[in-house]
Amino acid sequence: MNGIVTLTTDFGLRDPWVAEVRGAVASVWARYPGFRGQVVDLGHDLPPHDVRAAAWFLRRATEAWPRGTVHLAVVDPGVGTERPAVACRRDGVIFVGPGNGLFGFLAESGPVEVVHLDNPLWRGHPRTGILSRTFHGRDLFAPAAAHLAAGAQLQQAGPPGCEADLGKLPAPATGSRQAAIVWIDRFGNAVTDLERNSALGRELEGGGTVLAAGAPVAGPVTAYGSAPGPDPFWYWGSGGTLEIAAAGGRAADLLGLVPGLVLEVPAT
Amino acid sequence: MNGIVTLTTDFGLRDPWVAEVRGAVASVWARYPGFRGQVVDLGHDLPPHDVRAAAWFLRRATEAWPRGTVHLAVVDPGVGTERPAVACRRDGVIFVGPGNGLFGFLAESGPVEVVHLDNPLWRGHPRTGILSRTFHGRDLFAPAAAHLAAGAQLQQAGPPGCEADLGKLPAPATGSRQAAIVWIDRFGNAVTDLERNSALGRELEGGGTVLAAGAPVAGPVTAYGSAPGPDPFWYWGSGGTLEIAAAGGRAADLLGLVPGLVLEVPAT
Amino acid sequence: MNGIVTLTTDFGLRDPWVAEVRGAVASVWARYPGFRGQVVDLGHDLPPHDVRAAAWFLRRATEAWPRGTVHLAVVDPGVGTERPAVACRRDGVIFVGPGNGLFGFLAESGPVEVVHLDNPLWRGHPRTGILSRTFHGRDLFAPAAAHLAAGAQLQQAGPPGCEADLGKLPAPATGSRQAAIVWIDRFGNAVTDLERNSALGRELEGGGTVLAAGAPVAGPVTAYGSAPGPDPFWYWGSGGTLEIAAAGGRAADLLGLVPGLVLEVPAT
Repeated sequence: MNGIVTLTTDFGLRDPWVAEVRGAVASVWARYPGFRGQVVDLGHDLPPHDVRAAAWFLRRATEAWPRGTVHLAVVDPGVGTERPAVACRRDGVIFVGPGNGLFGFLAESGPVEVVHLDNPLWRGHPRTGILSRTFHGRDLFAPAAAHLAAGAQLQQAGPPGCEADLGKLPAPATGSRQAAIVWIDRFGNAVTDLERNSALGRELEGGGTVLAAGAPVAGPVTAYGSAPGPDPFWYWGSGGTLEIAAAGGRAADLLGLVPGLVLEVPAT
Repeated sequence: MNGIVTLTTDFGLRDPWVAEVRGAVASVWARYPGFRGQVVDLGHDLPPHDVRAAAWFLRRATEAWPRGTVHLAVVDPGVGTERPAVACRRDGVIFVGPGNGLFGFLAESGPVEVVHLDNPLWRGHPRTGILSRTFHGRDLFAPAAAHLAAGAQLQQAGPPGCEADLGKLPAPATGSRQAAIVWIDRFGNAVTDLERNSALGRELEGGGTVLAAGAPVAGPVTAYGSAPGPDPFWYWGSGGTLEIAAAGGRAADLLGLVPGLVLEVPAT
Repeated sequence: MNGIVTLTTDFGLRDPWVAEVRGAVASVWARYPGFRGQVVDLGHDLPPHDVRAAAWFLRRATEAWPRGTVHLAVVDPGVGTERPAVACRRDGVIFVGPGNGLFGFLAESGPVEVVHLDNPLWRGHPRTGILSRTFHGRDLFAPAAAHLAAGAQLQQAGPPGCEADLGKLPAPATGSRQAAIVWIDRFGNAVTDLERNSALGRELEGGGTVLAAGAPVAGPVTAYGSAPGPDPFWYWGSGGTLEIAAAGGRAADLLGLVPGLVLEVPAT
């Protein structure tokens, strides 16, 4: 137990929605005398309703947090419909949110305990007690995350579920010599899902060319500042996958790269 | 006393102004040995100088926080002029900021204690001691909020005032079968001030049509995902008032909705 | 020791990079039983790769924090190249980041202790231990900042360096009757480097005109709300330097002001 709740949403920070989630957490914690928790933002500017982008973001953003952390994540276009509402735990770290595929990645690397949020004492608007049908972030997920971070047992949240309740996102359709772009970052760098530690990645280890939107891109380069010129280049990114950048420019704009675009790795 | 100061401003996060406010709070807290407080952002992207929008945001964002919380709010186009600088308390929760109408909503639901910020030991830039005429957020409101969150008494902040010192915003001019749009959120949903728990709201409870910028909008729908088609619909929002959304689209853009626009509810 | 790490970057908040930095700090702190630190954002929307803008921001944003605070700052276009990686301390406050001029301002006002980050136990991705060449914010600076905030000694970070290792930014080329614009803020106000407490500043104390992009601007005005009309005016800003604003408008847009632009102060 470390008393930290992190927040990942597509709510943005211009509206009061994130503040209301924070207030809901604080109001639950006020019922645990002497408990002092912290709420930490991971990100709130996820593309609205884009569960796939959110899952990638969450995987990266939650990689290093210690046991006892509770990650509350809400990108939930199906709020109020039949999708499950879950809490789940892997390696001592807890995730709370919708079972719409957002947490599907957890099941790829070890067993996950899953429960359905169903404790009537852990839900409802902090002042009125009413469960809004459109704001489960505040009225369902926030109280559950707050109780769990304050030391409540996962089993108190509700009855057990299974990994299928986390939902699953369709896998991108890439062939054996292909990779997909999964994220364009603020600097215009493109992150792909081509892992350095894969057959194709090892083949590229000594150097090689990938085709991005038809254009050949050479690599690997070892630092942004060591690129030979202004042309886009590839390198092994900080998440262990192939990325494309350009010194002093935005590779994504130069090459026309967008999330979902498929790269080719020509056979040598 | 819970040791939390929340921040709500129109400063944005691109400039160092919010960081300076945080530093001012931290420098006061350093004088209380053993005290460990937290500063929490509610929102900093309020429309610049728009006190009405800020008041609505603040009301929503501060609804659930426990007793002892100190809410520091600065949307203050009249900084340095004659408007009062106040701290006020309702139900054990404290608000600190300008008396320009921002906190007027507090007086609608119960007695509010008001004091004028006038303690010479609680003001001035943390390093130079000078009170900037243009940055009361840092030099006047932040120290007061920090002292109050650390356990100082409200009366230490200055002499008593009255509810009129909070200021008042002009009420929107809506007739008995009308409602006003108060906020457009990130998803393009329009929030109105038509309360479910009002005569007009109860009349709409079983279903009905509202006219938004001339267009008929049907409802209520119970979840975003259960709308029958792409047309905008209305529903009872998470704040207890009528809202307008569109499945897979931005209702505000589809219908031309903006804050201040008046809706009609035709008599049936 | 106060257990606070602040963050200042050009990473933005749309990508997971800041969240990964936060996770790296949390994972280090989990190794200090009983230690409870806080990570505080100063700003993440600095112009990408703009070390000069970042240095100005950092100077303002860190002015008031108490002894023991650790400021982690990363605007680092040369990541992975030969620029030093440093921790430095002035007046009991620690700064961690690249030695590319970002911290050069510290040496202007007192002695600075400098060390090179070189502790092999304080680096590497929190899960894999690998030091990414492109993400020192997470793998090098964050662990160092976390250890230092948790009570480790500065000397544990690595061998001593000197003030020259902080790097230096070229001084703006302004003559004796000139000043440069250093920042345009959210409200369109222009902040200059003309200090009130300088020969030129004292000359303007009783009132005078500056030429901004050729246009005469009168001042000083004492509060935004007390300007006589819509014309831009100057005033002594909250940082002790001359600023230009316009009542109800954006002075920077009205006059065409941008960072780096040089103002003239005509001799009277």
